[in-house]
Amino acid sequence: MTSPTPTPDRRLFGPGPSNPYPEAVAGLNRPILGHLDPDFLAIMDDTCAMLRTVWGTENSRTLPLSATGSAGMEAAFVNTVGPGDVAVIAVNGLFGERMCDVAARCGADVVRVDHDWGQPIDPQRVADAHPSPKVIAAVHAETSTGVRSDIAALGRLKGDALLITDAVTSIGGIELAADDWGIDVGYAGSQKCLGVPPGLAPFTINDRAFARRIEHPQSWYLDLGLLGGYVGEASARHAGRTYHHTAPTGMIASLHDGLARILAEGLPAVWARHAEAGHILQDGLEKLGLELFAAQGFRLPELTTVKVPEGVDSAAVRSELLTRYNIEIGAGAGAYASTVWRIGLMGHNARPDAALLILAALAEILGR
Amino acid sequence: MTSPTPTPDRRLFGPGPSNPYPEAVAGLNRPILGHLDPDFLAIMDDTCAMLRTVWGTENSRTLPLSATGSAGMEAAFVNTVGPGDVAVIAVNGLFGERMCDVAARCGADVVRVDHDWGQPIDPQRVADAHPSPKVIAAVHAETSTGVRSDIAALGRLKGDALLITDAVTSIGGIELAADDWGIDVGYAGSQKCLGVPPGLAPFTINDRAFARRIEHPQSWYLDLGLLGGYVGEASARHAGRTYHHTAPTGMIASLHDGLARILAEGLPAVWARHAEAGHILQDGLEKLGLELFAAQGFRLPELTTVKVPEGVDSAAVRSELLTRYNIEIGAGAGAYASTVWRIGLMGHNARPDAALLILAALAEILGR
Repeated sequence: MTSPTPTPDRRLFGPGPSNPYPEAVAGLNRPILGHLDPDFLAIMDDTCAMLRTVWGTENSRTLPLSATGSAGMEAAFVNTVGPGDVAVIAVNGLFGERMCDVAARCGADVVRVDHDWGQPIDPQRVADAHPSPKVIAAVHAETSTGVRSDIAALGRLKGDALLITDAVTSIGGIELAADDWGIDVGYAGSQKCLGVPPGLAPFTINDRAFARRIEHPQSWYLDLGLLGGYVGEASARHAGRTYHHTAPTGMIASLHDGLARILAEGLPAVWARHAEAGHILQDGLEKLGLELFAAQGFRLPELTTVKVPEGVDSAAVRSELLTRYNIEIGAGAGAYASTVWRIGLMGHNARPDAALLILAALAEILGR
Repeated sequence: MTSPTPTPDRRLFGPGPSNPYPEAVAGLNRPILGHLDPDFLAIMDDTCAMLRTVWGTENSRTLPLSATGSAGMEAAFVNTVGPGDVAVIAVNGLFGERMCDVAARCGADVVRVDHDWGQPIDPQRVADAHPSPKVIAAVHAETSTGVRSDIAALGRLKGDALLITDAVTSIGGIELAADDWGIDVGYAGSQKCLGVPPGLAPFTINDRAFARRIEHPQSWYLDLGLLGGYVGEASARHAGRTYHHTAPTGMIASLHDGLARILAEGLPAVWARHAEAGHILQDGLEKLGLELFAAQGFRLPELTTVKVPEGVDSAAVRSELLTRYNIEIGAGAGAYASTVWRIGLMGHNARPDAALLILAALAEILGR
């Protein structure tokens, strides 16, 4: 029980984590530094600068939170809504639902705007749901359904509200332009299209949202006012650093090196690579006679949802992919657990060869 | 800016993170697995089992939280206290103070029992502070002062209250016996005596505390009722796993392999190694004419506090250690920032050669 066991080398073609970029793995192998070491603080500042680029923002308060993407969601709400604040939340999948739960735990008055799963959100309907919400929240790329929504359109309609955006599955995979689109608060995860192991939540908040934040949020760990003494804000001010918590320095070095690799390729090229891999996969699945789940025109290239064919045992296929080919794909989410598969080609896996491999493996197992 | 830079190979002799065990570093290099992969779930279950051993507990709900030790503190309070609940908190350093802040954000009625920094807590005074608190909380090993407190004595006096214990700097370094001592809820960190990179918070809660928990805590991310569907409780029940959030699978593999290394050496031998290294260091510092800060009889072997000699610039010495010898030590905490040094010999660094090295470097720089 207590000795290390061999670990299978999986192809992580599920909804995340994805196989990290080799550069991000190499980053994990850098010597661990202390969280107040000047050399580490330089890595942290570089990381924040590169995060600004992938977010498409100038926000000084752009930083990696020391937890996974779901904690990023929690940070977005605990810092912006308190008891009685109206939060309009667009729900078109599992992560929109989770937002409602998280916001309600902050005491917010949640106005939920439901959409069919597999469809994008309707920005006008979301904007019309309440005359004066404090925040409007939506998921850019719904991990549960593989659907992209038009955040820019929502940003044009938001009025005085703060716009919170979940970019967990979009960042580093498809176009994201926080400032141009009017995103006031955004959170993401390291482990999908950024191609870094799971454990960090890239986060950004603009001055407008920070000025209207909850000054003493219910979470100490995710209190952006306190965090600002250590990272993001502090680095922008070139001020002294105040200890808050022990940053996961090794993970941040990995994120740094993963981001450097992405920016060396260039964001437009990275997006084009994701688009190409997703196109090959989705085209190939249809040629196998399978039916895609997400609404046409709104399909994410990095995360494809496909219906399990009639009479096929979803779990048995996933199990055979895993044991025979070391390939992981995801089950569906929520009510679609056994009727949809989720296939991610994210980050390092956003390549034509990965698309060919999963198509060949599925064709073989399904006998098509 | 965007290309990886060489990273100095520091000796991390501060209050944490410490240099990880080589086995924990090797664990980081295992291929990343999905958080629902059966091979990963086996690693997770093994990890929880080994965590029970280092905690000294049989609690089924023993698990690594996906964030750092400070999030462990937050998890302890958000799951046990709500508005109006009385929380008696022993404060003899920075982390006791932080507990008061975190508990207050949960709406708790905080009864703070202050002690001088550098002294252990007085269990009787803490127990007498309120007739019927819901929780009593104390820090086992105060990272800010290098002091050990008698948690077993507090456990004998706790009455009906739940005992919350901060074991961030004690776990894996000195004796810890959660069940025997009456600890109901405990949290720790991966990055000190466990010798694993920062990013995880080993956590344990017993059935008594779980039964009296806040059923719908203000934190979704740290909701132990929800987490129980994925890890700890679920593995004990051999039940199906429910997705909660994406576990940091790489970090958990590293923790697994670090724990396996500790248990291969044996906990008593590991504790003896920490005791020996701390003794050499503390003895040597006194021979250099320096004065220890923590009260005699209550000094942690893994974290030594020493007064900065009269007329010596604390920051200049730390800077010279860093730049000339690649050695990190810590400044003091709070009011002692410039008058105390904190020297940690934790985990992989709990060795006689590490003690000799820091003594030699200090002697050279101080000209003694």
